[in-house]
Amino acid sequence: MSAGFQRARRPEQIEARRTAILAAARELLAERPVADISLRELACRVGLAKSNVLRYFDSREAVFLEVLDTAWTAWLDELAFGELPAFAREERIAETIAATLAERPLLCELISAMAPVLERNISLEFARGFKLRAAANLERLASLVRAEVPELSAEAARVFARAVVVVVSGAWPYANPTEAVALATAEAGGAPGFEAVVAENLTNLLAGLVARRR
Amino acid sequence: MSAGFQRARRPEQIEARRTAILAAARELLAERPVADISLRELACRVGLAKSNVLRYFDSREAVFLEVLDTAWTAWLDELAFGELPAFAREERIAETIAATLAERPLLCELISAMAPVLERNISLEFARGFKLRAAANLERLASLVRAEVPELSAEAARVFARAVVVVVSGAWPYANPTEAVALATAEAGGAPGFEAVVAENLTNLLAGLVARRR
Repeated sequence: MSAGFQRARRPEQIEARRTAILAAARELLAERPVADISLRELACRVGLAKSNVLRYFDSREAVFLEVLDTAWTAWLDELAFGELPAFAREERIAETIAATLAERPLLCELISAMAPVLERNISLEFARGFKLRAAANLERLASLVRAEVPELSAEAARVFARAVVVVVSGAWPYANPTEAVALATAEAGGAPGFEAVVAENLTNLLAGLVARRR
Repeated sequence: MSAGFQRARRPEQIEARRTAILAAARELLAERPVADISLRELACRVGLAKSNVLRYFDSREAVFLEVLDTAWTAWLDELAFGELPAFAREERIAETIAATLAERPLLCELISAMAPVLERNISLEFARGFKLRAAANLERLASLVRAEVPELSAEAARVFARAVVVVVSGAWPYANPTEAVALATAEAGGAPGFEAVVAENLTNLLAGLVARRR
């Protein structure tokens, strides 16, 4: 534990400590995948002992889920579809979502790591808060889409919002192949990139939901 | 290295050794996630030294990708859509794919681990062979679907086949939540299970591709 740090006791001290831990997590995520970042490195980066980080967060996983929650909310705050031409409404919505997510690799990385890595080691108490906030964010995305596609039911818009998470989770790991895999993929006929895969699948999902509405 | 094993030299001995390693990999996969299985454990289960396993396979990852290739081919060998009622053709195709995949957790686990875990540590030579076989399996799935939905273009059927991989990869990690996450999810309004998520999304994708055909 570095000499400059004392245990934070006042609420504003606790908040400053939490903010510093979250900032260190974001820094490390810019350097490598979340699965490769240990609690020890996170603590080291912020100048605290591991046990001290755990005074402010449940677990390493809880730190990253907090970063995810903030990035997801920031993305929604900025998400706007602009003027949509009627003839290509579904494409434009899907492309806007795909392009703005592709600009946020940290968010895509965390969405993709959410179930397989991050949700494996959190307490019931933290899971409760996180799942409620995640459900609210999904509901917000569903409402934004439904404002543009009013013929969708609330449930169909919710299905679409959940599908965004599934498609990003499934497509993101293919976004950064090793050199060998990239070369072999190109030789075997190639594969569309992350943004194209997300845009294509979300267009089809939305067109399908519109076609199937009752 | 156990006393009973000598270095295999004849083709049929090499093949027997490879078969034993693949069988041990399948056994271990029935016990825990692929990310938690080391080359050491794999070697131990089959009674070989680590270095000896690497005579027959490039890497631990190459072993699991071979298991994936075999499971994926076996699934396609059995995939049949039966008599499809015209009014619910897309649903039936999607539900058949979802139900038969849900019966094969080993295949779903390996599809889901393919990009984030398994393709990280393979040689160019192995990647070339694997990607060609994967492309052939995708083409086979596309053809099976196109036989039922002949109005799809070959490219649209290929988009659907690739989407099956993306949706399974994205949805599978949510299939086995921890107790805390399962409880918190239920309290936050619940979420559909793996088979339902795959069926719903594949139905919408297929209906969207049909609606958007030119």
